[in-house]
Amino acid sequence: MSGQPREAVTPGGSAQSESNTEDRPPSLAKVNLRDKLALFDDHWHPRVVAELNGQQVKVAKVEGPFVWHHHEHEDELFLVVEGELDLEFRDQTITLRPGELLVVPRGVEHRPVSRGETHIVLFEPKSTLNTGNVENERTVKQLDSV
Amino acid sequence: MSGQPREAVTPGGSAQSESNTEDRPPSLAKVNLRDKLALFDDHWHPRVVAELNGQQVKVAKVEGPFVWHHHEHEDELFLVVEGELDLEFRDQTITLRPGELLVVPRGVEHRPVSRGETHIVLFEPKSTLNTGNVENERTVKQLDSV
Repeated sequence: MSGQPREAVTPGGSAQSESNTEDRPPSLAKVNLRDKLALFDDHWHPRVVAELNGQQVKVAKVEGPFVWHHHEHEDELFLVVEGELDLEFRDQTITLRPGELLVVPRGVEHRPVSRGETHIVLFEPKSTLNTGNVENERTVKQLDSV
Repeated sequence: MSGQPREAVTPGGSAQSESNTEDRPPSLAKVNLRDKLALFDDHWHPRVVAELNGQQVKVAKVEGPFVWHHHEHEDELFLVVEGELDLEFRDQTITLRPGELLVVPRGVEHRPVSRGETHIVLFEPKSTLNTGNVENERTVKQLDSV
């Protein structure tokens, strides 16, 4: 949780119907996925954009191969917003394009790989660590909200 | 659960890297949101496209005003894929456009209203009833998967 107020994002328009942003509870501010993704440039470092029912919605920019890992207790949803993501499994590869999602069930080993820069949305329990059962230099323990 | 096999959707392309669909567990089939939305035409009747961690991802076509309601125990995420959705609250209206999402926290009264046909994704616990605390002719108790 950052100390910043979460402001409603109104791309290319005014905020007529969305005034009084300051008094709005944080969870009633809308999230524009592209605007959130424009706020950072590093790869494989997800940011939290929303929380609900113990789950988090995260956005991330990714490029190249990640690490093989699995999540012991969490199913993980990948949704591609821009670009193309290969989800490698031990026996197959599934390629996601914009508007496509896949749920990786808990326990299933996977490795996300992106040939160019790809923008993704993740949906997973708050407890989920990006590298799952592996801890290395790619592990991000403390996630920021944007 | 329907008896249909869930096949990987590969829009405009072949399925080289996604062969062996028949042997794949249902949860390892990707979901193309637009393809799923093309499978039905009725309004305010969500279909389940994925499940994870006790939550469901649903798609729906909506048009016109829905009913005022709240969910006692569930936070509800709305994401617009196409069109424009007004989320009316008792003290304000927030308009979502494609690529924008909003979490409506449990207990908060809301009414979704769409001027034209709008395509949305819902993310919420499996227990969530579309009309929340209200039961009327718009209530859909048994959701199908597509």
